[in-house]
Amino acid sequence: MSTAVIGKGLEGIVAANSGICFIDGEAGVLSYRGIDIHELAERSTFEETTFLLWNGYLPNQATLTEFSAQLAAARELDQRVIDMLRSFPTSATPMEVLRTTVSALSFYDADEKDNTHDANVRKAFHLTSQIAMIVAIYDRIRKGKQIIPPDRKLTHAGNFLWMLNGEKPSETATRTLDIALILHADHELNASTFAARVIAATLSDIHSAITGAIGALKGPLHGGANEAVMRLLLAIDKAGADPVEYVKGMLAARQKISGFGHRVYKTEDPRATHLRRMSEKLCKDAGQPKWFEMSRAIELYINKEKKLNANVDFYSASTYTTLGIDIDLFTPIFAVSRIAGWAAHVIEQLDDNRLIRPRAEYIGPAYPTPWVPVAQRP
Amino acid sequence: MSTAVIGKGLEGIVAANSGICFIDGEAGVLSYRGIDIHELAERSTFEETTFLLWNGYLPNQATLTEFSAQLAAARELDQRVIDMLRSFPTSATPMEVLRTTVSALSFYDADEKDNTHDANVRKAFHLTSQIAMIVAIYDRIRKGKQIIPPDRKLTHAGNFLWMLNGEKPSETATRTLDIALILHADHELNASTFAARVIAATLSDIHSAITGAIGALKGPLHGGANEAVMRLLLAIDKAGADPVEYVKGMLAARQKISGFGHRVYKTEDPRATHLRRMSEKLCKDAGQPKWFEMSRAIELYINKEKKLNANVDFYSASTYTTLGIDIDLFTPIFAVSRIAGWAAHVIEQLDDNRLIRPRAEYIGPAYPTPWVPVAQRP
Repeated sequence: MSTAVIGKGLEGIVAANSGICFIDGEAGVLSYRGIDIHELAERSTFEETTFLLWNGYLPNQATLTEFSAQLAAARELDQRVIDMLRSFPTSATPMEVLRTTVSALSFYDADEKDNTHDANVRKAFHLTSQIAMIVAIYDRIRKGKQIIPPDRKLTHAGNFLWMLNGEKPSETATRTLDIALILHADHELNASTFAARVIAATLSDIHSAITGAIGALKGPLHGGANEAVMRLLLAIDKAGADPVEYVKGMLAARQKISGFGHRVYKTEDPRATHLRRMSEKLCKDAGQPKWFEMSRAIELYINKEKKLNANVDFYSASTYTTLGIDIDLFTPIFAVSRIAGWAAHVIEQLDDNRLIRPRAEYIGPAYPTPWVPVAQRP
Repeated sequence: MSTAVIGKGLEGIVAANSGICFIDGEAGVLSYRGIDIHELAERSTFEETTFLLWNGYLPNQATLTEFSAQLAAARELDQRVIDMLRSFPTSATPMEVLRTTVSALSFYDADEKDNTHDANVRKAFHLTSQIAMIVAIYDRIRKGKQIIPPDRKLTHAGNFLWMLNGEKPSETATRTLDIALILHADHELNASTFAARVIAATLSDIHSAITGAIGALKGPLHGGANEAVMRLLLAIDKAGADPVEYVKGMLAARQKISGFGHRVYKTEDPRATHLRRMSEKLCKDAGQPKWFEMSRAIELYINKEKKLNANVDFYSASTYTTLGIDIDLFTPIFAVSRIAGWAAHVIEQLDDNRLIRPRAEYIGPAYPTPWVPVAQRP
């Protein structure tokens, strides 16, 4: 065995070949299957984007209609899963609940023991619809509200808002969420997707891989960041403070400002461009321009002082809040979208698998350190 | 960003510095914190080994007594966790159940939101005791047997056998399992441990990391391998076949023989040495020499024909079977042991964290591929 020390975090190390997501961090380019994220955000839908991620090309009308119908048909949860959701303490956070419930879904999936490509595509349909339903249903349960049955005539984004709020969503709300779902659907070997591939590469099942990915997404350095951004905006608002002065104080106290900088992008995160525009329009239309204005002031200051750009998390905070979504649902909604990419990566991994098993550089006590009897130990 | 193509699987790539486990794959050396695995297998206990993995040195008598008492005191499950285990369909496999239930444990852990070193050590005590209990309790439930309450006077290995079987285990059985738990407790950046570190490195919680690790361990290229070995032995026995002829046939049909070869070891897996010896003694003492004899014949043949050595999984199959343990509990028992190493690695990762986020080499459609309106697609 020959090893090369490459430092922590695998930064800049290629861990897999992948045909799903092309990123040029220097040029600020993100594309799914070669198609630029700006084109997809402006012209595609979550359903079409999911088809693209799973199949590698854009569907024609007949194929898209069938795909969307299959996704809508998968809006089903075994009654025992709903009973399980009701049995959880309402203090459980939505991410803990999502992680646990997605793990339990395998009990009731007829394809659980089938790890072939076709079975995993079927499971990907189920998981994509079920994750959205679990997030919406648990939110209703913990608030003591009635569960809303799925509406298979609505789009994926529209049905999620319907099941969450119990009222038919506006076109603006549906399209805003749809764009957010497109923007978050994949991002190459981000930590949660990489975790999913590491798990799948033992030839484990897709439920194991997605459960692990949800656990990774939960972390504040990953999906948890947009929640931290909103908590900051709320703290500034509550204190009646000037946002720039507030952030200056945080920097002086060496506190981290979430929503800025990215391991991969050296220029603006292309997803931030759309979320900024959506945040501005939504906040103004809703008569709550403050969340956008505070965000923009902080962004300009951090740009200037720290040379850091806003990332995907920064404007999703004000966008989701203006849509009336609770803060602790921001990361679950990230999962509602990212399942499209996770599934694509797990299936790609299993189609041409190799165990992912790196080495560690040993820095512990010298070998051999003798075992000494307990009476002789200090 | 500069990337270097390094192929799939991260083979030979260093992904972290770690002071926990030293392996020399050329020399067949495995050590925990510098202490050789042979010394630990012969002279240590699972409790002492767990202390060593978590703390980096061997405890004196007072410290070991306190540590063992703390682990025994953690033999507790919230009644709602037991109710949840009872609610699962008995068709659910023990690994699916373990993954789901470990995820749910976070609901009831008072330290769930505390990601400090000390809180994670407390959670590691809980998880180590709870994983063993969950495996034993679910096995009783699915078999329609009464749940056995934990006995805090027994060792970790002894209590597991007690809760599994409902009778006080023999000294030989307890010590055999204890040694197996020592041998499986850590193995550097194997796939499940690496998955745990990738998840923890987003600053997610230890329950997320361990849940993901269980999902990775479930795969047949990782923890699932010893189950495959036993299924092979049973198939040979059922067919009344000569083991060497049977395996020859499998090789001719290009079927994989589990339990041989290892990504890291180029010589004998040092853990196999102990498991071979235990298998031989146990099988003879139990009047069932056939499992050992079949295993040994297959090992010698694969050695000669394929130049592959038996790994940790090969003789654990006959060992566990002779202890009266069901096949689908082999991988869960791997988790009962490996939680010691997983916890050590998660805590080490969080003590000096950096997000683990590699890159992919893009091999998909050229960028930019235009988005075309649906009516114009083939």
